[in-house]
Amino acid sequence: MQGKIQFRVRYAETDAMAVVHHANYYVWFEMGRTELLREMGMEYKSLEAQGILSPVIETQCRYISSAKYDDLITLETELIIVERLKWAFGYRAFRGEELLAEGKTVHCFINREGRPISVKKAKPELYEIMLAKGLIK
Amino acid sequence: MQGKIQFRVRYAETDAMAVVHHANYYVWFEMGRTELLREMGMEYKSLEAQGILSPVIETQCRYISSAKYDDLITLETELIIVERLKWAFGYRAFRGEELLAEGKTVHCFINREGRPISVKKAKPELYEIMLAKGLIK
Amino acid sequence: MQGKIQFRVRYAETDAMAVVHHANYYVWFEMGRTELLREMGMEYKSLEAQGILSPVIETQCRYISSAKYDDLITLETELIIVERLKWAFGYRAFRGEELLAEGKTVHCFINREGRPISVKKAKPELYEIMLAKGLIK
Amino acid sequence: MQGKIQFRVRYAETDAMAVVHHANYYVWFEMGRTELLREMGMEYKSLEAQGILSPVIETQCRYISSAKYDDLITLETELIIVERLKWAFGYRAFRGEELLAEGKTVHCFINREGRPISVKKAKPELYEIMLAKGLIK
Repeated sequence: MQGKIQFRVRYAETDAMAVVHHANYYVWFEMGRTELLREMGMEYKSLEAQGILSPVIETQCRYISSAKYDDLITLETELIIVERLKWAFGYRAFRGEELLAEGKTVHCFINREGRPISVKKAKPELYEIMLAKGLIK
Repeated sequence: MQGKIQFRVRYAETDAMAVVHHANYYVWFEMGRTELLREMGMEYKSLEAQGILSPVIETQCRYISSAKYDDLITLETELIIVERLKWAFGYRAFRGEELLAEGKTVHCFINREGRPISVKKAKPELYEIMLAKGLIK
Repeated sequence: MQGKIQFRVRYAETDAMAVVHHANYYVWFEMGRTELLREMGMEYKSLEAQGILSPVIETQCRYISSAKYDDLITLETELIIVERLKWAFGYRAFRGEELLAEGKTVHCFINREGRPISVKKAKPELYEIMLAKGLIK
Repeated sequence: MQGKIQFRVRYAETDAMAVVHHANYYVWFEMGRTELLREMGMEYKSLEAQGILSPVIETQCRYISSAKYDDLITLETELIIVERLKWAFGYRAFRGEELLAEGKTVHCFINREGRPISVKKAKPELYEIMLAKGLIK
């Protein structure tokens, strides 16, 4: 499962080095997840509305080249794996052909009370889609 | 009612002009409000816990001089006025003696459902404090 | 001179009230300026590359209704006026037909050394365009 | 080399889950670095003033528990290792005794033109301090 979005670097995202501050890549990754889930027919806001939250439990990113204000960024987002209690996404940010950064985030599934929930039980139709796509570990 | 806080400019708060991005002053103002309310014996998180939310309905700021990374900022926050349905705060940010910016925010009172509430009814003890201090219009 | 952009609310732009934090509207306004200037044939990054910076000297915003995560926002940006040493932009953010916020920003013109410059001298072609459009006060 | 700072969670740092957005931990880590370097007698802004920039090339973080608005956070920052062309820092964020997150960042050394520089050549006194402390790999 892969998705692609494009957007421009905001001035507010840059820092005194005149490049995008490293923390903002994670905000971009989140946009990538939002759109990938939408394409998969499963909006994240609907998950939340159904009481399934998916907070981040791990983030990592390697920065290869700097993005600048107004650069047109292409972000590729991939759903790497789904397990019973968590899932992981991979990301690659490009300016044209040039790879700027690549990262990964891992998320668990919890309910409104903050307790871990099994996606298989809480959202069996999502689990089935994932299973069919070979994403279930 | 006045309060004063000091903090250092974070690198992430700067932008490609190598100065603090203008939107971040409002984040500082919010820190000022948090500490002023604490000093007044009325933590904002307690208000929220009691079901009184106070979202922003107006913001304004004039920028006189630029703040830079690692500058030591002094922020003065003042509770200007309390009305039945809203209150207003004023702010002045300094680096040493130099005035960097001055702003104002206005906030209403709502409950968890988003309906306006009268602070006089919802939080009479707060109203009494304000009245005694001559802050009630 | 008017422009219009559309974008989705990012999760990172929301706060604990589950609505967009008020400071982020100014970041959106900046995106609106970037695109309006591009449409006018005058990219802001080109201005900066030519040594003309235009920092914010005043901001203001009225918040009418709350934006939520994943809302599709339409932002209208208007160049209100150009004077010799500054210019002003107006903004209105909508979700569908519903007005969420309206704001204004004022910006001066400075060079790399931070000194005020006259746009008429520094960028006469910009000045001429503005004059022809009746934007010069 | 270790340092410790304390600060309160800002409202703007929270998101619609009512906890601190994961990207903001990296902003906190940066504050930790700033203060650790200051304690080591080597302010980061002085490094930049001398033409030594140290952009981030890798970030990673594990999130164990959530921080909320107004929580008092203790952040421990450690300089883990210095190599000829890069250095790495480790971080642990606590609320009281409770570990919230632990992370790591790796930074290279570059000059104003963006070229890698050897800290040993560019800043021998820093290199000597590190060597004496057994931080040089």
